[in-house]
Amino acid sequence: MELSADASAAEWRRRIRDGSHKRHTAGLAPGVLQTNLVILPSTHALDFMRFCQRNPKPCPIVGVSDTGDPLFRTLGTDVDVRTDLPRYRVFHNGVLSGEPTDITKLWRRDLVAFAIGCSFTFEHALMAAGIPMRHIDCDVTVPMFRTSIACRPAGPFSGTMVVSMRPIPADRVEDVISICQRFPSAHGTPIHVGDPAAIGISDISQPDYGEPVSINPGEVPTFWGCGVTPQNVVLAARPELCITHAPGHMLITDVAENADEPFTQPYAAAA
Amino acid sequence: MELSADASAAEWRRRIRDGSHKRHTAGLAPGVLQTNLVILPSTHALDFMRFCQRNPKPCPIVGVSDTGDPLFRTLGTDVDVRTDLPRYRVFHNGVLSGEPTDITKLWRRDLVAFAIGCSFTFEHALMAAGIPMRHIDCDVTVPMFRTSIACRPAGPFSGTMVVSMRPIPADRVEDVISICQRFPSAHGTPIHVGDPAAIGISDISQPDYGEPVSINPGEVPTFWGCGVTPQNVVLAARPELCITHAPGHMLITDVAENADEPFTQPYAAAA
Repeated sequence: MELSADASAAEWRRRIRDGSHKRHTAGLAPGVLQTNLVILPSTHALDFMRFCQRNPKPCPIVGVSDTGDPLFRTLGTDVDVRTDLPRYRVFHNGVLSGEPTDITKLWRRDLVAFAIGCSFTFEHALMAAGIPMRHIDCDVTVPMFRTSIACRPAGPFSGTMVVSMRPIPADRVEDVISICQRFPSAHGTPIHVGDPAAIGISDISQPDYGEPVSINPGEVPTFWGCGVTPQNVVLAARPELCITHAPGHMLITDVAENADEPFTQPYAAAA
Repeated sequence: MELSADASAAEWRRRIRDGSHKRHTAGLAPGVLQTNLVILPSTHALDFMRFCQRNPKPCPIVGVSDTGDPLFRTLGTDVDVRTDLPRYRVFHNGVLSGEPTDITKLWRRDLVAFAIGCSFTFEHALMAAGIPMRHIDCDVTVPMFRTSIACRPAGPFSGTMVVSMRPIPADRVEDVISICQRFPSAHGTPIHVGDPAAIGISDISQPDYGEPVSINPGEVPTFWGCGVTPQNVVLAARPELCITHAPGHMLITDVAENADEPFTQPYAAAA
């Protein structure tokens, strides 16, 4: 039986877990946080977490598993990183070795999983405020660009930032910034507004990832830190093992998209 | 020569470093971020960082040093955790062993330093909005209370939250929440507004730390996560070594208090 897009996050995870949904997750379980995934051996975990703390716009951490624990216990009651994403990418020494739909057999007692915020969250908030998203209207993947912006390094992790671009009507840029301020866990405010060349982008019609979109008269290209950044940075460091989500195949959590902080349970008096 | 309170952060750090200022840091170098300090051996660093990620209201991380590096390189050009706080507390296996004004001789290659946001930041923003701070008007230390609120655990770190309390005029509570939303790096929005008993506080006139303040008619006791929380949680785990700031003797950074994110340099095109 087909599941309707607005079924609950738990239902979608169950469907993904049993192998009956293997496609991307855009639009599924509206209203909850979806996230990027990066899994690393614990030898790299502290440096990667420092890298994310120092680069919160491209790498906003919304969850970290305990070492060896495949559950994200702060993002839902049954969020299992081994089975709950529709497709993964597995890298050995920085080289892609497969795109499985389940990583149960690859899980190890020394792995740490990181959930990293994704742009779906702020896009929904912007559209709710009447700000159009060109790539969604055109049904294409958001255009993404390598930039000359240096990330702040940590241990073996360093590199330049990848950004996503959305054309914004000039008279809505201030609204966009003030709305995005509310979502630090989803890349926060734009990294740059206006001149692509200022951040090392030579041709705005030729994205490095995703697909180009038109920028109409009266619109300003607006750039956000992008979750491709941590993937690139990690792969360049060539860790013995790294597992990520496959593009567009995100983790669906139980956290409300508009939650003050990325946790299923607010702080509450102890039982 | 006495330094005026509004001298720069770098001047105050120099004065503290050479031993000529050994008192608390309240009111010094107005406009910059001051922080709590926790130093731990690297064996505990990943779990402590996970604890902070899971408990951002009492434990907002604003900086993490590289292992063995005594400089907070993202918080200023010369911020040295060994010398730049006026007074420290040194704990062995959770027991206080001294309150030195310099920890250069205790520094080791396996130590990691954490800077944790402090309430000075949001207090200044609230006062700028015309919201009075009773403990400042009365020139006492803010009252702090142990609560029944459980922190989200990580590894050896667990425990209940300590909160600070400020009486807020009932008609300003909404303003307080919306102002504090802008400062997630400084404890963010209140944990609780209203009933002390709901969070396990039996007598609001008997704080566990700091000094009592009056709550006048028309005012509501308002509670924020407090930086004493991570100290208590760390000491309860009895790490072989832990070094913290002494109460009120904070780290003065170069980061602007109203910065979008706690870094001296915004992201910029690589040279």
